[in-house]
Amino acid sequence: MSETKKTVAILMGSDSDLEVMMEAARILDRFGVGYDVEITSAHRSPDRTRRYVKSAGKRGTRIFIVGAGAAAHLAGVVAAETTLPVIGVPLAGSALNGVDALYSTVMMPAGVPVATVAIGKAGASNAAVLAVQILAVSDDVLSEKLAEYKRELAKKVEACSRETKKRALKS
Amino acid sequence: MSETKKTVAILMGSDSDLEVMMEAARILDRFGVGYDVEITSAHRSPDRTRRYVKSAGKRGTRIFIVGAGAAAHLAGVVAAETTLPVIGVPLAGSALNGVDALYSTVMMPAGVPVATVAIGKAGASNAAVLAVQILAVSDDVLSEKLAEYKRELAKKVEACSRETKKRALKS
Amino acid sequence: MSETKKTVAILMGSDSDLEVMMEAARILDRFGVGYDVEITSAHRSPDRTRRYVKSAGKRGTRIFIVGAGAAAHLAGVVAAETTLPVIGVPLAGSALNGVDALYSTVMMPAGVPVATVAIGKAGASNAAVLAVQILAVSDDVLSEKLAEYKRELAKKVEACSRETKKRALKS
Amino acid sequence: MSETKKTVAILMGSDSDLEVMMEAARILDRFGVGYDVEITSAHRSPDRTRRYVKSAGKRGTRIFIVGAGAAAHLAGVVAAETTLPVIGVPLAGSALNGVDALYSTVMMPAGVPVATVAIGKAGASNAAVLAVQILAVSDDVLSEKLAEYKRELAKKVEACSRETKKRALKS
Amino acid sequence: MSETKKTVAILMGSDSDLEVMMEAARILDRFGVGYDVEITSAHRSPDRTRRYVKSAGKRGTRIFIVGAGAAAHLAGVVAAETTLPVIGVPLAGSALNGVDALYSTVMMPAGVPVATVAIGKAGASNAAVLAVQILAVSDDVLSEKLAEYKRELAKKVEACSRETKKRALKS
Amino acid sequence: MSETKKTVAILMGSDSDLEVMMEAARILDRFGVGYDVEITSAHRSPDRTRRYVKSAGKRGTRIFIVGAGAAAHLAGVVAAETTLPVIGVPLAGSALNGVDALYSTVMMPAGVPVATVAIGKAGASNAAVLAVQILAVSDDVLSEKLAEYKRELAKKVEACSRETKKRALKS
Amino acid sequence: MSETKKTVAILMGSDSDLEVMMEAARILDRFGVGYDVEITSAHRSPDRTRRYVKSAGKRGTRIFIVGAGAAAHLAGVVAAETTLPVIGVPLAGSALNGVDALYSTVMMPAGVPVATVAIGKAGASNAAVLAVQILAVSDDVLSEKLAEYKRELAKKVEACSRETKKRALKS
Amino acid sequence: MSETKKTVAILMGSDSDLEVMMEAARILDRFGVGYDVEITSAHRSPDRTRRYVKSAGKRGTRIFIVGAGAAAHLAGVVAAETTLPVIGVPLAGSALNGVDALYSTVMMPAGVPVATVAIGKAGASNAAVLAVQILAVSDDVLSEKLAEYKRELAKKVEACSRETKKRALKS
Repeated sequence: MSETKKTVAILMGSDSDLEVMMEAARILDRFGVGYDVEITSAHRSPDRTRRYVKSAGKRGTRIFIVGAGAAAHLAGVVAAETTLPVIGVPLAGSALNGVDALYSTVMMPAGVPVATVAIGKAGASNAAVLAVQILAVSDDVLSEKLAEYKRELAKKVEACSRETKKRALKS
Repeated sequence: MSETKKTVAILMGSDSDLEVMMEAARILDRFGVGYDVEITSAHRSPDRTRRYVKSAGKRGTRIFIVGAGAAAHLAGVVAAETTLPVIGVPLAGSALNGVDALYSTVMMPAGVPVATVAIGKAGASNAAVLAVQILAVSDDVLSEKLAEYKRELAKKVEACSRETKKRALKS
Repeated sequence: MSETKKTVAILMGSDSDLEVMMEAARILDRFGVGYDVEITSAHRSPDRTRRYVKSAGKRGTRIFIVGAGAAAHLAGVVAAETTLPVIGVPLAGSALNGVDALYSTVMMPAGVPVATVAIGKAGASNAAVLAVQILAVSDDVLSEKLAEYKRELAKKVEACSRETKKRALKS
Repeated sequence: MSETKKTVAILMGSDSDLEVMMEAARILDRFGVGYDVEITSAHRSPDRTRRYVKSAGKRGTRIFIVGAGAAAHLAGVVAAETTLPVIGVPLAGSALNGVDALYSTVMMPAGVPVATVAIGKAGASNAAVLAVQILAVSDDVLSEKLAEYKRELAKKVEACSRETKKRALKS
Repeated sequence: MSETKKTVAILMGSDSDLEVMMEAARILDRFGVGYDVEITSAHRSPDRTRRYVKSAGKRGTRIFIVGAGAAAHLAGVVAAETTLPVIGVPLAGSALNGVDALYSTVMMPAGVPVATVAIGKAGASNAAVLAVQILAVSDDVLSEKLAEYKRELAKKVEACSRETKKRALKS
Repeated sequence: MSETKKTVAILMGSDSDLEVMMEAARILDRFGVGYDVEITSAHRSPDRTRRYVKSAGKRGTRIFIVGAGAAAHLAGVVAAETTLPVIGVPLAGSALNGVDALYSTVMMPAGVPVATVAIGKAGASNAAVLAVQILAVSDDVLSEKLAEYKRELAKKVEACSRETKKRALKS
Repeated sequence: MSETKKTVAILMGSDSDLEVMMEAARILDRFGVGYDVEITSAHRSPDRTRRYVKSAGKRGTRIFIVGAGAAAHLAGVVAAETTLPVIGVPLAGSALNGVDALYSTVMMPAGVPVATVAIGKAGASNAAVLAVQILAVSDDVLSEKLAEYKRELAKKVEACSRETKKRALKS
Repeated sequence: MSETKKTVAILMGSDSDLEVMMEAARILDRFGVGYDVEITSAHRSPDRTRRYVKSAGKRGTRIFIVGAGAAAHLAGVVAAETTLPVIGVPLAGSALNGVDALYSTVMMPAGVPVATVAIGKAGASNAAVLAVQILAVSDDVLSEKLAEYKRELAKKVEACSRETKKRALKS
């Protein structure tokens, strides 16, 4: 799916972020939304980052999902160069365990927002759900898929509860 | 403008949040995006909150902007009831000065994202910019307005720098 | 014991919380207080959560014990729907290691309290002790059992000290 | 009302805590629950604290509400001496602004819970609501009053929203 | 040495604290200062704690070293019952990793100090050094031993540097 | 009193710390313990600091009380140069409001303790009480004064409670 | 002085940062080091920021001093575009009071350092001292000026101590 | 290389810091900058530390890189004794995981800066890059090497992205 139209650009600062950020890719696959995956650094490859962002429109990108840890400037730097929605995923990994990345990603100045989600895997996966929600604002097919996804979430909780209850009360 | 189509729903938990959250309204006015403003609490008026969210689609709402302080469950509670994008604005006001609201708003579990922005006024205003960016994904007029807005931001910085430089070097 | 009257409802957001929350069940077993165990999520299964809370009175529930991690809205969401006492157990598990869940659980707005206990296992076990204390306000048998429990706690410390002292002074 | 039966004991470590803790008294007055107010310190008057707690049963006390700031040991010290429910209100006031008091109050070891509520005024008022909820477990009149109180909370939010909306949309 | 005069009382809330607190015993052994080791809890065995503190003078105790984790009230509770110096060692172990114990131990109200040292093993060992420093205020033999200890610390650093330098420059 | 024997040296890094640190002087005055007051900086006047510490023994100093804010190295630097007990008072004043000074003062490495007390005024006053407790280890007159001081603390709480109770129950 | 050679570039993200950052200018004036003052934002004027940094070499800039608050990406963004030393001054101003800016400025990834100083005015003034120290590595005149400055710092402490001592012992 | 001219002095408080601090040595080796490695403690060997700093000029040292954990006074103590640039590397290792060392290192008072870099390995390696940047202010050969290093950083990101992309899109 992802080879076709690359509606979402998944960026991250380092290949050590890949495992966490692939949670986003898995969700986009499920919804049939195409994506690109790119490693680029706000600090070590600023020109490349800018060129990628500036040319993203031509590749059909509508939304950025950006994961970064520690000082975590990447999402903000992307947001500075585009008017497309930028979703930031703060990543743990430094001694401060993601609090640094969270503050760096979310505390953006007025005029240049980054839509920040949770630290780590839950955040990466939610970044993709949020991206689908954004696309679904003008896409009824995606909108219905989201409704279906929401019903499944609820069903899974119910199934899980039944299983757990059995174990809990028997133990 | 806001009397017409209410594309964005601005919710907050208490009237003490109003001053900060009106920053969002000001930005939406500038972009000509209609909105509704509602006080409703996740904890004190849960039925009303749910009814409002459930009926928002009928009123034409495409995006929620939700401000809340302290335990700040409101954005998450709204996100639980809708598949529309929910933007959360953590508000200071408790003894923990917004860190509580930030963690409560951003650390959502996989499946139910809240797009979190900065604590307080910068966040409220950015929530609206983000809402416009989301709408602009499928609206070229808004998209061009955003590009114009970005150019203005840059021009203001330049003007401000000229002024400041004069003062700084004279003083 | 727990098959009979389900005086306490032990809720949690995910089956990964089960091991910690069963500390509460163990304490309730010791005091002969019946309980129900249920997995339900504030965000992924909001309707189910609400139905469970609303119907709890009919099942004889007098107290809720609610464990949740990360954004940890579950205890607050339960408290919004009931006037029964709600005890919240913040759980570690996110990158913020339970500080997020603690703030989310304890910083409730005026009118809708959550009785918050410690993060993790000590908290889960204390949630059950607190539930017994609440029931004992109008139950002299439980009240005497609590007095006995308190005497045992003191005796265990004394026995433990004797053992430890021997080891410490010999080593 | 409070001169009669003193069902709730409101304790605090210093008279500088009085203004905040009287929020609890106001709620108890509203529900017609009698209370005692006492200043006693875990560290400066430990004998007096212990005597007060030990004799509370004779005065008809069923629940303790304890406010303390900084090291904030008072609630834990009370809980060590009684099997009645102890509700702890962490108070701001030190340079750490209540985080110290929150951690000290909530992180109790297994066996001796303190039911912790929010830092400051919201917490003091919620301590009283929680006390009423605890009493209501075996008191249908209080239980009905709580249901009425919950309905009022919702109505107030609705009234407040109407007022605010007018102002917001006119401004 | 420690069987004879028990000048220092080493207290801790749980036997899980023993390994860390024995660092204090090792230092006292080195300086030939006798000590007692006792497990007693501020919350689970308050009477025993008080009796121990009250009778410590008769056993010749001049200084308390108190280790505790989580809510960590033990040092404060001891300080409330004695005018002897109380040294508090905050212990990690809860989800908050010792920040809770640090705040609880150090933020004592005016009139009742706890001399707080570092979290964990460095703190336990320093508690003993501090105890020796306190005794040395009126004991010239201990005072000279401390001077010797300080010279040894410096020599060890020098020896360690020589070793390390070799390895570092060779590698 | 303080002109005579200067048993305690009160040091601080800046004259802006004076108001807070004079709380220590007031307590020492009450107990008739002589003291010196000196401004000296670990970073701006390191030679002077060292000379002062090195010559303190000759002036009869037995204990150091050291207040410092922000990086707050002063207490540690003094402890590096003496074997006398060093009491550290972390001071608020930087943007981090004393957390920085607390961590810097308390987290000393094994071998070189600083007896840390609370941030700010309560800490400054407790530093002096702790100094008196240390001196009282070998001074029965001071020891009796401390016992009297403790009784007064308890009496003041009692008197304060009586007053407050009247006001609280009348209002 | 600053009209001549602009060896240091003082950048900041907003004119609200000017008052704090002028502390750096005052220090540079004292050492006779020329500087430029510029407002430019990492997020609102990224092109201007990059152009300024890229052309700084031609203007004779050898060092950057960069102040920024909240997400505070500016110092990192400058460091990404230059190999000159970049000194970052984290500024308070958001609800997180500078902790956000500190983490964002200091936690840079390997390869692209920002030399971070204290939050706020002390940091701004120290950024300039550090800049002078860097220039003095190859400038003996500045090096001697720094030695003189250090002697003055020590003298001021001494004078301040004399004054304070008088007041303290008289009061 | 490092046996020859020792332009940079790498200091650390303990040999347990060696592994992290050798990241700095590796970078200096790459740039052909000579260095010395020394273990010395601010608190356990203060005389040795001072002598080393005072004599560093004679050995040709132009810059200090100082790693320290916990209370982490070493960089500040070095900065107090020299006018050369001091780069501080906060190290994790205590229960506070480096936040203590970061605050202690960065929050220096006006007049005595420490150029602080990230906690741990990224910081140690960046300390060396910063040292090279400082030397390059007056050394065109180093300046060109830095430009080459920056280009390599960017190339590595690009190569890494190509590799990662293949794996990510194939998986």
